[in-house]
Amino acid sequence: MSISTQFIATKNSQILDKDASLRPLAVNSNKELMKVKTLELSEQIGEFQNILYAQQKHKLLIVLQGMDTSGKDGTVRVVFGRTNPAGVRSISFKAPSASERAHDFLWRIHQQVPATGELAIFNRSHYEDVLITKVHGDIDETEVQRRYAHINAFERMLSETGTTILKFFLHISKDEQKQRLQERLSDPNKHWKFNGQDLTERASWSAYQDAYQSVIRATHQQHAPWFIIPANSKTQRNLIIAGIVAEKLAAMDLSYPSPQADYFKIKIE
Amino acid sequence: MSISTQFIATKNSQILDKDASLRPLAVNSNKELMKVKTLELSEQIGEFQNILYAQQKHKLLIVLQGMDTSGKDGTVRVVFGRTNPAGVRSISFKAPSASERAHDFLWRIHQQVPATGELAIFNRSHYEDVLITKVHGDIDETEVQRRYAHINAFERMLSETGTTILKFFLHISKDEQKQRLQERLSDPNKHWKFNGQDLTERASWSAYQDAYQSVIRATHQQHAPWFIIPANSKTQRNLIIAGIVAEKLAAMDLSYPSPQADYFKIKIE
Repeated sequence: MSISTQFIATKNSQILDKDASLRPLAVNSNKELMKVKTLELSEQIGEFQNILYAQQKHKLLIVLQGMDTSGKDGTVRVVFGRTNPAGVRSISFKAPSASERAHDFLWRIHQQVPATGELAIFNRSHYEDVLITKVHGDIDETEVQRRYAHINAFERMLSETGTTILKFFLHISKDEQKQRLQERLSDPNKHWKFNGQDLTERASWSAYQDAYQSVIRATHQQHAPWFIIPANSKTQRNLIIAGIVAEKLAAMDLSYPSPQADYFKIKIE
Repeated sequence: MSISTQFIATKNSQILDKDASLRPLAVNSNKELMKVKTLELSEQIGEFQNILYAQQKHKLLIVLQGMDTSGKDGTVRVVFGRTNPAGVRSISFKAPSASERAHDFLWRIHQQVPATGELAIFNRSHYEDVLITKVHGDIDETEVQRRYAHINAFERMLSETGTTILKFFLHISKDEQKQRLQERLSDPNKHWKFNGQDLTERASWSAYQDAYQSVIRATHQQHAPWFIIPANSKTQRNLIIAGIVAEKLAAMDLSYPSPQADYFKIKIE
């Protein structure tokens, strides 16, 4: 799968500082073709996921992070829109409740990690606890570093106990966000997605970019890699993410489980 | 939607005793046409569900019950295979754990009911606790009647607090189950679905039919109706269920929520 491989090759560069990453790849200039390819990949993901579910061996965790309007919801709908609900859980982490705040920041996250046979999608995640909190000044640099270590240890544990982890940062430009927020305001069918809080967070745009850059560097691990996805184009974003997920599933050695006995001999009465 | 209406008209008859209910409806003789129609309906369900999710007002609970191989998994995959994972949860209730058995039988069920904006699918449910237990003789008739009352009170509470409930009994014949079990044994890709326990339960076929008949009669309520689905034909089963679900969603007064302020006036900087 050339798209994702090509992308992986660039993902460790300081992509957040460069506008180059936001330009559509020349190879995918045809939008309709990209959509068809994405649909094919999402159907492939559905087929792999059905075997994952049958096999009850692997666990797959997808983490989606990005600024408001960066397309986390759209990614869930398009990339994972051809899966079997029986084996897929999408969890949208909101501002923590009083009970959640009364525990450590990984407590509510741990409860939602995938079981064997499951594909879990985190729409926002434990990473909010080193992003919002840092930008708002709720935690100091010592605490930030401590949390990076907590996160790395937590993800290592998940990985060593059989969870495959893929983390995506959906990277849009400030101008693109402006257009998307304005669109939510002018389309009554999109009003429900608008939240006054989005404007407050938008005012801290550069602080968030810095925070993302720092957290991605500190928590990019071989067993829990970050993929920085150019997301100004929804079509391209979906195609790239679908490509990476499908490629990972293809490499996961999925197969229907072997029977526990010689089933060919059994005759039903 | 003529299919489901037509079906609803017959669902209160003593359908479990009659083989007539297992014959495909003449009007749907064309299998390919039925599949196309089902796909259309499942896409409609996906569109309605997206508004349900946006609106954050309604809760929809689908209960699937039926003998082994009756097609509960297939129904989840086909009928709900075009939904957005963000607002859909499919819960497969297995034999209760020690911790679950240490609570009342509705305890683990209550934890999984849909929140506002959610569509939850129960693949097996609290009904197992008046079926398996009754057939195995773990509870006596007094306890069975008590549990019927508990279930009715529980579902009334869910309904009165905003949950729409649809319960489906997937009705197959004993012969059809024989063929399906045999198929699982001869196809290595289906071995994982075979379970020795299925044969034990099959031996109690008529006791189960009686138990189903009794529970359906006792718990069929206007706010939580049972639909008995002829399920010897997978194609017809999917079409009928998709039709009933789509019709219900269409009647649910779904709409994108109104903005909290005059959004047309806001200008993003």
